[in-house]
Amino acid sequence: MRIVLDAMGGDHAPEVVVEGGVMAAREYGIEVVLVGPQEVVEAELAKHDTAGLSLPVVHASQVIEMTDEPSMAARQKKDSSMVVGMNLVKNGEADAFTTAGNSGGALAAALFHLGRIKGIKRPALSTVFPTRKGLCFISDVGANTDCKPIYLLQFGIMGSAYAERVLGISNPRVGIVSTGEEEGKGSVLVKETVPLLRDSGLNFIGNVEGKDIPAGLADVVVTDGFNGNVVIKLSEGVASLLMGVMEEEIKKRPTAMLGALLAKGALREVKRRLDYTEYAGAPLLGVDGVVIIGHGRSNAKAIKNMVRVGKEAVEKGVLTAIKEGIAENVYSV
Amino acid sequence: MRIVLDAMGGDHAPEVVVEGGVMAAREYGIEVVLVGPQEVVEAELAKHDTAGLSLPVVHASQVIEMTDEPSMAARQKKDSSMVVGMNLVKNGEADAFTTAGNSGGALAAALFHLGRIKGIKRPALSTVFPTRKGLCFISDVGANTDCKPIYLLQFGIMGSAYAERVLGISNPRVGIVSTGEEEGKGSVLVKETVPLLRDSGLNFIGNVEGKDIPAGLADVVVTDGFNGNVVIKLSEGVASLLMGVMEEEIKKRPTAMLGALLAKGALREVKRRLDYTEYAGAPLLGVDGVVIIGHGRSNAKAIKNMVRVGKEAVEKGVLTAIKEGIAENVYSV
Repeated sequence: MRIVLDAMGGDHAPEVVVEGGVMAAREYGIEVVLVGPQEVVEAELAKHDTAGLSLPVVHASQVIEMTDEPSMAARQKKDSSMVVGMNLVKNGEADAFTTAGNSGGALAAALFHLGRIKGIKRPALSTVFPTRKGLCFISDVGANTDCKPIYLLQFGIMGSAYAERVLGISNPRVGIVSTGEEEGKGSVLVKETVPLLRDSGLNFIGNVEGKDIPAGLADVVVTDGFNGNVVIKLSEGVASLLMGVMEEEIKKRPTAMLGALLAKGALREVKRRLDYTEYAGAPLLGVDGVVIIGHGRSNAKAIKNMVRVGKEAVEKGVLTAIKEGIAENVYSV
Repeated sequence: MRIVLDAMGGDHAPEVVVEGGVMAAREYGIEVVLVGPQEVVEAELAKHDTAGLSLPVVHASQVIEMTDEPSMAARQKKDSSMVVGMNLVKNGEADAFTTAGNSGGALAAALFHLGRIKGIKRPALSTVFPTRKGLCFISDVGANTDCKPIYLLQFGIMGSAYAERVLGISNPRVGIVSTGEEEGKGSVLVKETVPLLRDSGLNFIGNVEGKDIPAGLADVVVTDGFNGNVVIKLSEGVASLLMGVMEEEIKKRPTAMLGALLAKGALREVKRRLDYTEYAGAPLLGVDGVVIIGHGRSNAKAIKNMVRVGKEAVEKGVLTAIKEGIAENVYSV
């Protein structure tokens, strides 16, 4: 198993990324191919004990920056770590590509250099999301801000395949985000998508409201990339608001501070259960290759987990599952 | 000051609604007009000590149920508590209408019986939302699932007028929800709305991401009713997920349970600061009359606060402020 890691992708690249790559190579016993400027990456690698680990470096002189216009950069920066890394996957020299860099750039590079799976209208950026019952899988979370019903149907098909194969959820319940539980509630897009999902072979449970997502009503949550992006970022914001206000109030009261100290183990476990870095790595479903995109703010642990997500997607045959799912649900819309 | 309260609106109507109405009449020293079936409402009133309070009952034989199709019910149920109550406002017999009933029904009844303010394309359901810095005001949160740029511009104008007058925020910062902070990120709708907001007389600060809403980056958060509805319901769900997981983990550990006991005062204050019932009551901005819609699950305190929101909107001259704001920003789009 060879997983490519974009050494230059992420707010804390290359330091933290290379650190995470070393952790992944050690913990999972796989080959982690680091792509980036040879000297820079090797200087970072030298900071770690890499004895016995498989961490080859593939040189790439350019970087797709966070400020770059995605599609332009993906076309023009042919020697960027993203493009070079994806071509390793395309040419069969590696099994998956992972990056915590410019997600729009990664999407554009994947479309341009790997291409779409036959029949797929639009790839979807998707992510695991913690719920009361464990976790669910949301698709799309930002690749497509404006969608058509057929895209959403395909997000459901791809998400369902991923949830079943990688997350091990059998017969996953697929819901579509809307403003009310009753069929007929929601935007024009939702109303037009519901019949497609109902007629598909998926285990479609209908509309889910905002509150139903963290409650864990659906295993696969289908939505357009605009709304999905707001969902994941807002959740992060609400959790941070709650924890921030709690800290503020506790600090005002000495007995409460003692209380928080006694509850420290429990609070740590809460954080662990809800921490995105545990699940870090959003698969870009629908492109013809395994591509995993991590949070720009990823720490080394999140980078390590992103590589793990790539490894699991390869092991569980996600690409094949999606191809089969799409072939079974052919729509010419 | 006479505020109409729909005695039949809400999951716990009429018991809890009448209780909240009695509380409001006592606490604010205003007249609360209860609309609903005379006998039913009077039977509820009899359970309370109403000596010295002004709580007249206006008879209405019908109810717009949660299961009713909104526009149909608003037209046909002419003797419903909503329609009768709104007509009291229309005829100048009351200053504001408040309900915790079917929000779609209230919107339809308001459009049909009160009408829109001249120049307003679509009324917006709007709500106060807790943030790290206090609170912000989100518009729309469910009245319009499919929007045009001009609607969003007007949501900004109305929201800004409300935030300035009722919430006392001077020169409120207006942001539009999008998938990235940079101008040019987002859906077609957002991209087309940004220039309109930028050219308006509003204090427009640009795009805000999901995480920026609870962080309090904007005082007025503009979005379409689909996304806004998901935002408020998801926030509720995430807070409940966090508190639920915390309770679960604390209960597993005796020392943590003791800790939680010591931190009880702090936790109570957190709850109070973030509790929606404190701010309950979402104004329906853009209709020609003050209409406040509460959460269906409102308890008596939330009902009382909903009446207070109506009272404040009247006192602070929200209708006039919106009319002035729209007149200053005339667009023929």
